[in-house]
This record gives sequence, C-alpha cells and structure tokens, in this order.
Amino acid sequence: MDNNLTSSIGNLVNSVRQAKPLVHHLTNYVTVNDCANVTLAIGASPIMADDIEEAADITAISSALVLNIGTLNSRTVESMLAAGKKANEMGIPVVLDPVGAGASKLRNQTVRMLLEQLQFSVIRGNMSEIRYIAGLGATTKGVDASEADLENSLQSGIDIASGLAKQYNCAVAITGATDIVSDGRSVICIENGHPMLGSITGTGCMSTSLIGSFCGVTADYRMAAIAGLLCMGIAGEIAYETAGQQGNGSYRVALIDEISKMNSQTMHERAKVYEA
Amino acid sequence: MDNNLTSSIGNLVNSVRQAKPLVHHLTNYVTVNDCANVTLAIGASPIMADDIEEAADITAISSALVLNIGTLNSRTVESMLAAGKKANEMGIPVVLDPVGAGASKLRNQTVRMLLEQLQFSVIRGNMSEIRYIAGLGATTKGVDASEADLENSLQSGIDIASGLAKQYNCAVAITGATDIVSDGRSVICIENGHPMLGSITGTGCMSTSLIGSFCGVTADYRMAAIAGLLCMGIAGEIAYETAGQQGNGSYRVALIDEISKMNSQTMHERAKVYEA
Amino acid sequence: MDNNLTSSIGNLVNSVRQAKPLVHHLTNYVTVNDCANVTLAIGASPIMADDIEEAADITAISSALVLNIGTLNSRTVESMLAAGKKANEMGIPVVLDPVGAGASKLRNQTVRMLLEQLQFSVIRGNMSEIRYIAGLGATTKGVDASEADLENSLQSGIDIASGLAKQYNCAVAITGATDIVSDGRSVICIENGHPMLGSITGTGCMSTSLIGSFCGVTADYRMAAIAGLLCMGIAGEIAYETAGQQGNGSYRVALIDEISKMNSQTMHERAKVYEA
Repeated sequence: MDNNLTSSIGNLVNSVRQAKPLVHHLTNYVTVNDCANVTLAIGASPIMADDIEEAADITAISSALVLNIGTLNSRTVESMLAAGKKANEMGIPVVLDPVGAGASKLRNQTVRMLLEQLQFSVIRGNMSEIRYIAGLGATTKGVDASEADLENSLQSGIDIASGLAKQYNCAVAITGATDIVSDGRSVICIENGHPMLGSITGTGCMSTSLIGSFCGVTADYRMAAIAGLLCMGIAGEIAYETAGQQGNGSYRVALIDEISKMNSQTMHERAKVYEA
Repeated sequence: MDNNLTSSIGNLVNSVRQAKPLVHHLTNYVTVNDCANVTLAIGASPIMADDIEEAADITAISSALVLNIGTLNSRTVESMLAAGKKANEMGIPVVLDPVGAGASKLRNQTVRMLLEQLQFSVIRGNMSEIRYIAGLGATTKGVDASEADLENSLQSGIDIASGLAKQYNCAVAITGATDIVSDGRSVICIENGHPMLGSITGTGCMSTSLIGSFCGVTADYRMAAIAGLLCMGIAGEIAYETAGQQGNGSYRVALIDEISKMNSQTMHERAKVYEA
Repeated sequence: MDNNLTSSIGNLVNSVRQAKPLVHHLTNYVTVNDCANVTLAIGASPIMADDIEEAADITAISSALVLNIGTLNSRTVESMLAAGKKANEMGIPVVLDPVGAGASKLRNQTVRMLLEQLQFSVIRGNMSEIRYIAGLGATTKGVDASEADLENSLQSGIDIASGLAKQYNCAVAITGATDIVSDGRSVICIENGHPMLGSITGTGCMSTSLIGSFCGVTADYRMAAIAGLLCMGIAGEIAYETAGQQGNGSYRVALIDEISKMNSQTMHERAKVYEA
C-alpha cells in the first residue's frame, strides 16, 4: 500500500478519536443501534433526530450528516431533505446510503429526488444499488446485492464508480468482495473484508456511519470513504479470526470490538489497497 | 422422534441455507434487529419496508411475509394490510405474530381485522395471545404470557391450537414450556427450549422470523412452524449450556451463534417432538 | 455506605425480581432493544406501545412508565402525554429521560410541556440536560453532556439537583463521573461507574429503564433512582474488569450479563455512596 495513503488514513483515525465529531443520522430502525455503536467505536458521537421540527437544527450543530433510506417513509424523507439542505447551506458533508435502491418505486423515486435536490459528499452502496443509480439494469434482491450484479467484472464497477463520481461531483464507494472508491479522478480498490460480514445485518449501514464519522474530520471525502471501508474490512477480517468459528452472534460482537480498537498501526499492517 | 419428520426438518434447514429466501417483515422496532439477525443466521435474507407506498411492492419480490404487531400504529397497520393482501393474491405465505393480543383494545381490534381480511399460513403466539384469539379469557400481562394462562393444561392448549387451525385454515403454533403446533388435523408437541429464553427480549419475535424463513422454502406450513420452533428451542438449550451461567448478554449472543450453526444433524440428535 | 441504605437497596433488587413489574416505555428507536433487555435483566417486564390509541391503556396495566425523548416526534409526544396523564390519574410512577434537552427547540419545548403537564416521580439526565431544565446555560452537544458543563463543580450539581427536585416535587438524578440523586431534602452521591459506559450507546437510557423498573416496586422514588444508578454503575465496573480490554462489543454484552446477575450482596460490597 502507498505509504502516503497509509499515513493519511492512520491520521484520520487519530483525528476522529480526538475531535469526536457529532454525526447526525437519519437512518433505518433495523440497524440504527449498530450505527450508533459503530460511530462510538470509531470515536465519533452519534445523534439520531428525524422529526421535521428538529432535523435541520440538529444537523446545524453536527459535523456530518448520514442519510440512509433503509426503512424510509414519507415523514422521514421530508426530514432527510430538510436536514440535507441545511447541511448543504452550511458546508456540512452529507453521506448517502441508498439501501435497496432498485427494489421498489418508492426507493427509486426517493433516491432520484435526493440526488437532484442535494449535493452529497459520498454515496456508498452495494453493486445493485449503485448500478441502479447509474441507470444500469440492476437486479436488486431486497437490500442485498444480487448475484447477477456481482458477476459483473471489477472493471465494470470501476467504470460505474468513476462515472457516477463525475456526474454527482462526489466520492462514490461500491462495497463488495473488492471495494471500489472513486472521486472521478482516481480509483482505489480495497481487498480487505470477509464474506462473513454479509451474514449479519447492518454491515453496509455501519460502513456508511464510519464514512460519515471520517467526513466529520476531513474535507477529503474520497479519503474518508477509503478510511471507513478499510476500518470495516480490516475489523471484519480480525473478527473472523478471533470469533468467526463461534457463529454470527460472537462475530458481530467481535466486529465492534475490533473497530473500537482500530488504530493506525493495524490499518498500516493490514490494508490491501491499490490504485486501479 | 419420528424419523420421517426428522429428515424432513433437516432438509428444510438445508433448503433455507441454499435458497436464501427473501423474508419481508412488518414488525416492531424493539426486536427488529434481532429478527433481521436471526433470519440471516438461519440462512434467509431479511427485508423490512413498512411504508404504504412500497409495502406491497416489496412483498411481491419476497418469498414470505411476517406481520408482527409488537409496536403497531395506524400507519403500519395499513401497510400490513396492503402487504398481506398482495401476498394472498400472489400465494406468498404470511405469518402472524399477534404480540400482546388481549393487552389493549387497539391490539385486539387489529388482530381481529387482520384475521378477517387476510389468509395466514401460520399464526404463532404465546398462550395468552392465542387464548385471546380463540375468544377465551386471556389474562395477558403486557407482551408475556400470564401465569394464570400458563397454568391451563397442555390438553387445553392442544385443543385451542387445533380448533383455531381449523377455524383459520392455517397452522397455529403456541410457544411455551411445551410448544404446540397444529394444522387442524394433527398436533405436534415440542419439548425443546429453556426458560432462559424468556429472560431476553425478542425470542418470540425471532421464532416467528424463523417460521417465516422456513415458509419461504416449503408449502407445508405446519412443517415450517415445527422447524422454526425446533431451531429456537434447540439453540436455546445449547446456548444455555455454553453461556447461560455468564448472564443474559452472553446468552443472547450464544443463541444467535447456535442458530447460525444449526444443521440437520443437531436437529436430529436434539429434537424432542411427539405427536399428541 | 450507610447500612440501612444498603439493605434497602438490596431489598429492592429482590423485590423487582419477585414482582416482575410491567414497565411501559415510550422511548427512542436507537436504544429501545437495550432498554427492553436491561429491564428483563433486572427482573422486570418491558412493554413498548406508542400509538395514541393504546398508550394510555397499556400504561393502565403497568407498574411504571418511562418517557424518553431520544427520537421524539409529534406522534409519539402526543402518546407520551396521554400515557403520562393516565399514569398521574392512577398514581403510577413516571420517569422522564430528557435526552438531548438543550440541543434543539423541539426538544426544549417538549421537555417544558411535559414538565408542565405531568407530575414525574424521577427525572434522570446528564449534566447538560439537567442544566437546561434548570434554566442554566447548558452547552449541550447532541445527546452527550458537553465538556464545559462537566467542568462545573460537584457542588453546583448538588445545588441544581436539589433545587429542581423541590421545584418539580420529584427525585432528580444527574448521571456523570459522580452521580447525584436528590429528592429536595437529602442528596446522595454515587461514585460507582466507569468511563467506558460512555463508549456504548444507551447506557443513559438503560439507567432510566432500571430506575423505572425499581419505581415499579417502591413508592420511595429517591431510593428507586439510587438503586437504578447503583446497578448500572456497579455493572459497568465489573464489566470493565471482565471484558473492557476486549473492546466495546464485549463490554456491552458483559454489562447486560452483570445486571442480570446483580444481587444485594454485590451491591453491598461495591456501592460507593455517601450523603452530600
């Protein structure tokens, strides 16, 4: 791994633990507790406030905003929009997690609307979700990437990430066996992670919360995305080594353990990152 | 245990791990994360989508639908109805968890309405909830079965399950020290489980999610109900042996561990099932 | 520690495990699962029902009511009010957790309204939240106490707790490095706890649920508050000793373990309590 990149990422971990940025989440009720705990584990401070009467106010005192449509409804979508507009006005970074994009008309329309109305700093999704946003034939199966979509080549993912990043002027992160991050100029691939991450709920949402946490301490959103995915990937590997054989429950506990112990040295030793 | 039954159940476990059926949940926000994780642990894929604008659409791409009224409200009850009607239209199995039936007028009316408007494949509840549905004097105390209701004899439970199964033309599962499953023709009793299952939240809801997962791979809903309750009961026993002494937190982690490791051999060795 | 106080608290733990009081929560969706599990761990029975059509009905069958505004919205605030009024009518204790008071106009208005319309038995918050309620210059940063507010002296906290307790005729509990409980006459300080409690989400909310559980078995609400905070503080210390080095995930599991194993002897041996 590029040593400059390594040390930048290591510095981000130190920064987030020092600055404890407040990260406002409008997110789903399935994995919200995991998102709060992962945000705390990396050293940031989570807050969840989704009423239209306070969503913008809470955003205004936050360092980053995470919008996750996992269990969207008409009430919270309005709040997402209000919070996002306030963040855009104030230059607060906004991260989008388009959970299940492609799976229903409501999700599709909502993602389109959010992308039209708001400027995002990072969009993170699985291959099916990102393919849908790119206007390609996604075959979303619920909230997980479909196997058909995963069979597309790495090169295809790189092209999609790069194209979307240019189109929406933000960093785009596609998570999968190989994670892809692009800001429209360069593309970084991350080979960390473990298949067992897919066997517990919320690892995608938690990755987005980690990215949001890092966005709270740097204006280099590409770097924030890389840092977030590296944390999740490396923690997922170590958790498998320490607890994978015990089963899904222990693996989930170990994952949060490893994120709470993540530091620049572990990231330096474990990171499998290359420029595509 | 009947060897035919054993091998059928074992096959169901293999089927669900292979087919990974998408299981749509409209459920409560207290235990929703546990429901998602248990669904993944048995090998199925959970999705939670409760907005009226997408509830039916998401049901349409799912293999089973779980309706759980644990924290019902007027908005989500409408969505339950829409999702349930779509499922009925398309022949997708629907499982009802009438959490807290008998505890408030709202729950009672909602359960009545759902039973009138929808055809269920399985209804799973504790003795108080099922007694309420059967029109008997339930003395529900919140969301747990009351001690008065539990003092009724096993024979009474068998009669109730059998009668309701005939009335609603579906499988009925009553969970307790002895679980009872009937399709109106035969009645199966399950002696697996451990009292410590009652010391953590969501084991009832998780049982229903397991049943929903199995309904995603078989049209024999009685068998799906037996498989779901056996998984929870056996995992609850092993979790007690490995982690019970450590306390409730460790027990909960071990429970998910054991469900994620459940296989046909363990079920065969541990199952305590008999025809009543 | 005062031996009378010790044995009273020990008796409360025994009482709650024996009586299993039903504790109705109108609370946030971030930590609701933790609140349910901690309520079960101490021996009480949780129920969460927030629809306006049943909130009062469920309160009517409960032994205590917890109102937590962590993710308040207009719908649930109405239900909190209805449930609180029913509780006041029936003499059922009501505990308020003013999460994030001071962080937004909506939270501020809601807390004011609840304090005007309802009679609370216990108010529990962190220093920023309680300072806001006391009309002092709180510098709330999201849902955690701000460092500026924490720098105020212990004496200042004692004065605030004592003053508010008189004003609202209830017990007031301020949680922090030193917990302070006052009923307006005496003030008790608790030195138990561990900083790692702040590294996982929901320990404040869970403390409130514990207080609610004890309110279900005694009319001495000051004592219920002390018992709840002692349980959390002592469990937090032991959990750190057994699992702290493993990381945040394991610490959280150990915390629930220790609460589920809490008994009068451990409380007697560990309690660091004094009258201010």
